[in-house]
Amino acid sequence: MAWLDEIAFDERGLVPVIAQDATTQRVLMVAWANREALEETRASGQAVYFSRSRSRLWRKGEESGHRQRVSEIRLDCDGDVVLYAVAAEGGVSCHTGRESCFFRRLEGADWSIVDPVLEDPELVYRK
Amino acid sequence: MAWLDEIAFDERGLVPVIAQDATTQRVLMVAWANREALEETRASGQAVYFSRSRSRLWRKGEESGHRQRVSEIRLDCDGDVVLYAVAAEGGVSCHTGRESCFFRRLEGADWSIVDPVLEDPELVYRK
Repeated sequence: MAWLDEIAFDERGLVPVIAQDATTQRVLMVAWANREALEETRASGQAVYFSRSRSRLWRKGEESGHRQRVSEIRLDCDGDVVLYAVAAEGGVSCHTGRESCFFRRLEGADWSIVDPVLEDPELVYRK
Repeated sequence: MAWLDEIAFDERGLVPVIAQDATTQRVLMVAWANREALEETRASGQAVYFSRSRSRLWRKGEESGHRQRVSEIRLDCDGDVVLYAVAAEGGVSCHTGRESCFFRRLEGADWSIVDPVLEDPELVYRK
């Protein structure tokens, strides 16, 4: 696939992927993808990543139910960062049960948690 | 600085930083920062990164004039990605003269350039 050859994968064959909500434009999370994850995302329209901890494809939502429908895939100028525009099922993308993984904001010289938990994380992975 | 200790810097002492437009929410670019870059960003309110190619602090706009005023700094759940919410001077953040580095969109199985050049990149670095 020629489009994959334009991506500058790192020495592990991975590229970071930003998932951004296609409607609210909120940055939801950053994960990794390999060639196979990107190709499956393109073909299926569902966000697929590569889990470094499990060393395998991670079809977002396979355990949590929080799938992400991908409406757009973008690539940056250096070809080393990918962006998925997504619709996040249930409005939750973070394993903490929040909309976004970026729920800590610097206030003065301290991080404050500024976003609510929308779903009990204990329950997310029992679905 | 305790807030810096909560960031999971990599083995080079760097963390990736997403710059997002605070108004339009467009994802503009991804670069790197070290502790010093983050502390200067917090203190000055201007986006500072770490240039890997030059191995030194990169005060965004120092050559291009395209400074970024930072209104918010966020950290993700794993502490390994930082997000700056910025106002980009001149509306250009990419070295190609475009608003965003993410100007290529996958259409079918090809990347298409979908965003205009707002400023001649030949001129950007002669300011």
